[in-house]
Amino acid sequence: MIRLILIGTGNVATHLYDAFLNTKDVTVVQVYGRSQSSLLPFSKKTPVTTTIEALMPADIYIIAISDDAISDFSKKLVLQNKLVAHTSGSVAMDVLSNRNKKGVFYPLQTFTKGKKIDFTQIPICIEAENETDYKLLEKLGKHISKKVVRIPSEKRRVLHLAAVFVNNFVNFMYIAGNDIASENDLDFDLLKPLLIETAYKVKTLSPEKAQTGPAKRNDTKTIQKQLDLLRNSEYKELYTHITKAIINRYGKKL
Amino acid sequence: MIRLILIGTGNVATHLYDAFLNTKDVTVVQVYGRSQSSLLPFSKKTPVTTTIEALMPADIYIIAISDDAISDFSKKLVLQNKLVAHTSGSVAMDVLSNRNKKGVFYPLQTFTKGKKIDFTQIPICIEAENETDYKLLEKLGKHISKKVVRIPSEKRRVLHLAAVFVNNFVNFMYIAGNDIASENDLDFDLLKPLLIETAYKVKTLSPEKAQTGPAKRNDTKTIQKQLDLLRNSEYKELYTHITKAIINRYGKKL
Repeated sequence: MIRLILIGTGNVATHLYDAFLNTKDVTVVQVYGRSQSSLLPFSKKTPVTTTIEALMPADIYIIAISDDAISDFSKKLVLQNKLVAHTSGSVAMDVLSNRNKKGVFYPLQTFTKGKKIDFTQIPICIEAENETDYKLLEKLGKHISKKVVRIPSEKRRVLHLAAVFVNNFVNFMYIAGNDIASENDLDFDLLKPLLIETAYKVKTLSPEKAQTGPAKRNDTKTIQKQLDLLRNSEYKELYTHITKAIINRYGKKL
Repeated sequence: MIRLILIGTGNVATHLYDAFLNTKDVTVVQVYGRSQSSLLPFSKKTPVTTTIEALMPADIYIIAISDDAISDFSKKLVLQNKLVAHTSGSVAMDVLSNRNKKGVFYPLQTFTKGKKIDFTQIPICIEAENETDYKLLEKLGKHISKKVVRIPSEKRRVLHLAAVFVNNFVNFMYIAGNDIASENDLDFDLLKPLLIETAYKVKTLSPEKAQTGPAKRNDTKTIQKQLDLLRNSEYKELYTHITKAIINRYGKKL
């Protein structure tokens, strides 16, 4: 049995909590949060606290709070020589206080409040200072996911950068598509089967091979017509830059 | 019973063919292609031809060939006063020859060779010169899809532009993510659950609300660290532009 304490009440903490609640061999013995109200969703089934000094003994302490707050918070922990892991993609392991043993438990996924997610498919990127701690974090991860991988800090930040492209930047393309459609009284729903298939496509086909469209074909006539259609100067600029990058990419291959 | 002739042997033609093959009230009476070899996948079950003059009588002729070729091909058709529809998102209906009745039958989806797709969820964007032809194309569409919508040419090209953002540009973000990961010996597979969830997220949440990440938070520290990580100057430039656009978008909202 792994005794776990969750620090944080946000999206990542909540989804981890829900996932561990369904496991037999992990007990969330306590959840820490800044306010009683934020702890409400946890307090029915689990002891909670707003006091750092009241943290109970446990095998692993998982800090799932905002990136900027991790370092300072870890220094405030009154624990000594315990395994403390954060859940961030972009924060190095060594920002954690030296007073405890350090680790990272980074679930590579985007979490939405109130939306259940299948944790078994989420890669959990693990890092620790020594093999014993690594094995413990790995064991913890395997209770909720089939994909537990060892990723050191310098690779994790690269992974997080790649995630910014395939998640944040992709979502901004959705925003642009939504804006362009809405401005012309077209329902964004019409585009949803397309955008979902676009994601599914790269499950079986490399994105390199999945690329289509006027930029890939270097179809300057269609590109110019589409630029003329774009009223928003920001999207015009974006269209130009991405199109140029796609043309360069495929042009070089000829 | 609707008697249909398919002109073209590419992705769109093939997927339409497969979809109509499973309907009771539509018969593909013939498929036209430029070469016998391209017609091989169709010829087992359906009469085929490589001769324009050999096209048989039918209720609807669907031209599913590359955008640039549609206009010229429609002029070569020896038919008179038949309903001829193309399947393109970006080509206006009126590029079709005046000799026949014009229509558009645009399935808003990305098609992959050899990958079956559920047509019932694909929006089919219909346009015609008159109500009788519209009704016929609508009827045809409803045999394979639950989402048949009336979209005139000027709106269809806007829809196609939005589709470029949510499909072509999104896929290029996948290419970038893949490159960044691969350059650092990280498996792109790790990012797949994330990119699929990113697409699913906007099924229930507006992309506006789904946006997350350093740019949205205007987290200049992380942004700078990520820019420093990027070696490829093209991706650096892209990162800068999209980040700027996201910051502008959310900055304005404060």
